[in-house]
Amino acid sequence: MPAPDLPHHAVVDLLGLMAFGELLAFERMVADARLAPDLRRRATLGEMAAAEIGNYRRLADRLGALGVLPDDAMAPYVEPLQAYHDSTEPKDWAEAVTKAYVGDAITDDFLREIAGALAEPDRRLVLDVLHDSTYAEFAAAEIRGAIAADPRVAGRLSMWARRLMGEALSQAGRVAADRSALTALIAQGERVDVQGLFRRLTAAHTARMTAAGLNN
Amino acid sequence: MPAPDLPHHAVVDLLGLMAFGELLAFERMVADARLAPDLRRRATLGEMAAAEIGNYRRLADRLGALGVLPDDAMAPYVEPLQAYHDSTEPKDWAEAVTKAYVGDAITDDFLREIAGALAEPDRRLVLDVLHDSTYAEFAAAEIRGAIAADPRVAGRLSMWARRLMGEALSQAGRVAADRSALTALIAQGERVDVQGLFRRLTAAHTARMTAAGLNN
Repeated sequence: MPAPDLPHHAVVDLLGLMAFGELLAFERMVADARLAPDLRRRATLGEMAAAEIGNYRRLADRLGALGVLPDDAMAPYVEPLQAYHDSTEPKDWAEAVTKAYVGDAITDDFLREIAGALAEPDRRLVLDVLHDSTYAEFAAAEIRGAIAADPRVAGRLSMWARRLMGEALSQAGRVAADRSALTALIAQGERVDVQGLFRRLTAAHTARMTAAGLNN
Repeated sequence: MPAPDLPHHAVVDLLGLMAFGELLAFERMVADARLAPDLRRRATLGEMAAAEIGNYRRLADRLGALGVLPDDAMAPYVEPLQAYHDSTEPKDWAEAVTKAYVGDAITDDFLREIAGALAEPDRRLVLDVLHDSTYAEFAAAEIRGAIAADPRVAGRLSMWARRLMGEALSQAGRVAADRSALTALIAQGERVDVQGLFRRLTAAHTARMTAAGLNN
């Protein structure tokens, strides 16, 4: 149920958050690729990252079409997203692919939930920038491979995934406190139960952890 | 004049060099983007970089089709290309865009010269991975803008561009000494005068420097 009466600045807030999220995820994944055990895997994480900068361009172009400078729309998110990445710097390849896997999936779940609140063409745009599942499969296979090589890795990566989720929610809380229009968009007036949203996101995260051989 | 009798390992050497060159240029440009004065420019350098990883994929796929593991074909170039980038780490945004501008253009000139020695489909592939001129125009405009803001920058960037050219030629010399099949490919038997090739590359470099407001 699209809500074409959504305030313009709520949509701008959302697109600005997504655009900067893509830009920073791109840069961090490319930097994390240095942890890869070989050039093939290093290049694959680079390609996974490059998909994000393509999405950044689409979001920035849409912001431009809405009469907003992308830099202005992104500015409020620089600090919280930077803080998320600074506090979750992977120490090895298994942590790097786990971060990409968890981060991409939570982002996608969140965007699928929120898309219904948007009018076209923004609804379509938000659904279009969801991640290609090939990369999730690559990341999950790498995680399972690391656990197969050393079963003790499962505990460490499970803890790491919980930390990623915790840091992401903590920064999301900061953003929500600062950006009331965005929070209202997420809550879609009275139509969505925000606690239910977080419960669904967490449940999907748990299912994904299990699929990759991790526990929550 | 394609030369279908070229030794297989010379082509593999060339594609391996190009593939690792693209992968490393991608990673370094993304890292250099942190020097950008705003998010718009930071994202543009990221997009410029992302074009390289797309080319990497095409080259790696072609190596696979030739029955070679891309990692094996790239291995001999890891050290010299890493050394080039380590010795030419930009200190500010103007140096970063100058490096991208100079590096992309010299690579393209070199590939245009060498493509004639290849049989299809490699000839077409090498010509296809040449850089999009939009990015060269962006970089040249950034350089001219930096000089307009402070004319003294011209001298510093001109010296920087000479250093980039010098370091590139020095590493090219190391590669040439180690990889005789590749050197023979570049020389195309008796058909190309290698000194003439370097003279043409240097002349084109000088013309580009002038176009961006630098002197050689």
